Amino acid sequence: MNKKMISSVKEKGPLILNITNYVTVNDCANIILAANGAPLMSDEIDEMDDLLAISSGLYVNIGTLNKRTIETMLYAGQKANELKIPVIFDPVGVGASQLRNTTVDRFLETVKVDVIKGNMSEIKSIVNRQANKGGVDVSLGDLVTEENLEESIGLVKTFAKSLKTNIVVTGAIDLVSDGEKVWIIRNGSKMMSKVTGTGCMLGALIATYCGANKEELLDATGTAVLMMSIAGELVQKKVIAQYEGSGSFRTYLLDYIGKIDHCVIETDGAYEIR
Amino acid sequence: MNKKMISSVKEKGPLILNITNYVTVNDCANIILAANGAPLMSDEIDEMDDLLAISSGLYVNIGTLNKRTIETMLYAGQKANELKIPVIFDPVGVGASQLRNTTVDRFLETVKVDVIKGNMSEIKSIVNRQANKGGVDVSLGDLVTEENLEESIGLVKTFAKSLKTNIVVTGAIDLVSDGEKVWIIRNGSKMMSKVTGTGCMLGALIATYCGANKEELLDATGTAVLMMSIAGELVQKKVIAQYEGSGSFRTYLLDYIGKIDHCVIETDGAYEIR
Amino acid sequence: MNKKMISSVKEKGPLILNITNYVTVNDCANIILAANGAPLMSDEIDEMDDLLAISSGLYVNIGTLNKRTIETMLYAGQKANELKIPVIFDPVGVGASQLRNTTVDRFLETVKVDVIKGNMSEIKSIVNRQANKGGVDVSLGDLVTEENLEESIGLVKTFAKSLKTNIVVTGAIDLVSDGEKVWIIRNGSKMMSKVTGTGCMLGALIATYCGANKEELLDATGTAVLMMSIAGELVQKKVIAQYEGSGSFRTYLLDYIGKIDHCVIETDGAYEIR
Repeated sequence: MNKKMISSVKEKGPLILNITNYVTVNDCANIILAANGAPLMSDEIDEMDDLLAISSGLYVNIGTLNKRTIETMLYAGQKANELKIPVIFDPVGVGASQLRNTTVDRFLETVKVDVIKGNMSEIKSIVNRQANKGGVDVSLGDLVTEENLEESIGLVKTFAKSLKTNIVVTGAIDLVSDGEKVWIIRNGSKMMSKVTGTGCMLGALIATYCGANKEELLDATGTAVLMMSIAGELVQKKVIAQYEGSGSFRTYLLDYIGKIDHCVIETDGAYEIR
Repeated sequence: MNKKMISSVKEKGPLILNITNYVTVNDCANIILAANGAPLMSDEIDEMDDLLAISSGLYVNIGTLNKRTIETMLYAGQKANELKIPVIFDPVGVGASQLRNTTVDRFLETVKVDVIKGNMSEIKSIVNRQANKGGVDVSLGDLVTEENLEESIGLVKTFAKSLKTNIVVTGAIDLVSDGEKVWIIRNGSKMMSKVTGTGCMLGALIATYCGANKEELLDATGTAVLMMSIAGELVQKKVIAQYEGSGSFRTYLLDYIGKIDHCVIETDGAYEIR
Repeated sequence: MNKKMISSVKEKGPLILNITNYVTVNDCANIILAANGAPLMSDEIDEMDDLLAISSGLYVNIGTLNKRTIETMLYAGQKANELKIPVIFDPVGVGASQLRNTTVDRFLETVKVDVIKGNMSEIKSIVNRQANKGGVDVSLGDLVTEENLEESIGLVKTFAKSLKTNIVVTGAIDLVSDGEKVWIIRNGSKMMSKVTGTGCMLGALIATYCGANKEELLDATGTAVLMMSIAGELVQKKVIAQYEGSGSFRTYLLDYIGKIDHCVIETDGAYEIR
């Protein structure tokens, strides 16, 4: 399955439109290139129609949202829906400000999102906001652990089903679910949280994989998350062996994304699909 | 000639004003520094007069244009003309949206541009738009190859002459022409297209070289393109030897730009000037 | 003292809100993470209240200011004062444009700033503007050297006292003063000026140290400057030994910031506090 997903990206070289933050936009472009996609970055509403017309995927990341770009995000999301282009949504920092909360609400109300990716606190914030509207109170731990794994899986599946989207929860254990199936991924590196943009890069990578595998979004997403987690793990080994740190980690992460193929995944992947 | 161009940059340390995209702006600033120029980045129209008054070159790149920054670009371009500061124009993604096309048209109509740099599809888009106005239909391949080299040279020269500017077409073979002479550069690396910003960095490097060599813009541009192509080639060798990838390529590219002098160029340069 | 400052950052992991330029914003986020802080980047005025409510420090950098973000900076600065959050101000390029001068004036008039950091020409520009208002003419050299050290210290102390803030002047010799005491730091590397963003990164690092050491801002700032200077010195040695350049310098700088502890500082620090 991973082999098929990867081959599809390598063959198609999907063009991905990114409306993303100015902090990690360079990393997002570079990871798309490293994976053999083609990145397009813009936040100008007047060219969204034209750019979406040639794109295979849309990645929306609210990291440094502002009033101008929020409108671009909403417009592009709706247009992508019309064109049946997968929409990958990264609600960076939701919960930290009312503006982020409102923007996420508006986005989820007006755009059919294909994948939502976040860490547990971001996903929790969305879950609780959505749940509260129905009077339900959801409580989740801040981290997915082996101890709360079954409960976490259940909640992620429930949420994916109710929102009719794929959900990615990143952490020491990553979970990816469409509401029915779930990928449980145990690869990864603690250093990823010490480098800005690893989350955004994962979002862009998911968009690349979904853009090239439109009929199999869950598995496309699962493969992208797995690839990133394995890359992080291998890079951490190299960085520690060479007595380096977060600067080198960032550099090598791109190196490895370009090198990981299905053989590496089969050898190093610590994951299961239920 | 390369020696003279390089010495001039090293001695003068030209200040280059960049109105560029937020994806690769850091790389642009760093390559200008590596080459011994001084980078200034701004897109606020209210300070263009003051900043241009102390600048030796202007680099305009439309990579992430928006309605606000487009006006800054146009204003700065016209002001640079008044001050006789070389204007280097990078029409990133022209052809991909009507907004980009219109912006490029407006820029070329109101600003005397000293160098236009693009890949063949960008240059073709401009050529065809300009040509169509005169009812002529220009057709060019997407890549400059040994097979279509003579034809490509002819077209680039014709276009440079009709637009009264220097044209740089990047690719496996790079061409630089003022309409009379032409630099044909066979150095380079396929990896350059797998790292975002190598094109923008080249634009910023050309601006640095033009800023320090205002009387010899063609040769300044040729030297900058040659230097970048040789750097790419040398870095690719290092990256492959060390089993690295695009992240390391980006890092080493700056290392090498700081090290390449006329001796390296004379040893490793694969170019001719006709 | 350095040990106490460092321990405090490691224990508290302070959240730092950054309103900064789009050129070096990625480096700022990464250095905060490398130091064990948590970066938050935004320039949208509508979320400043919410983000400041959870922040321990505010870093304002005018590198790519525009009319929209200037208002955000002013608002956030005043709000941070209300909340008693330290404000670290980086007047990048002040003196280069009237807009920058006016912005700096407005900021210093309406916000109580805890630390101002700049190179000598930036600090001079502020000193002279402030001084001129009182009819005094201050003249300083462009560089702090052993020859003009006593005079430079005197001026920095005077200025810190009159402005009631901590002043950092970066250069071959770095000075940090609150008007009474002064840190004199002789570590550093000439390569730092060949990499964009080393100044901005220092500003973000100072904000991190101040955010975790609110009662001891002078020493927090001194430790941050010392740490950055030592990191630069160690990285330069590595880069020269490996025949690398400015790209690698940037990468390793983050590696080293993550590794330098009080032991390294005591071994390699070349500084005095008077």
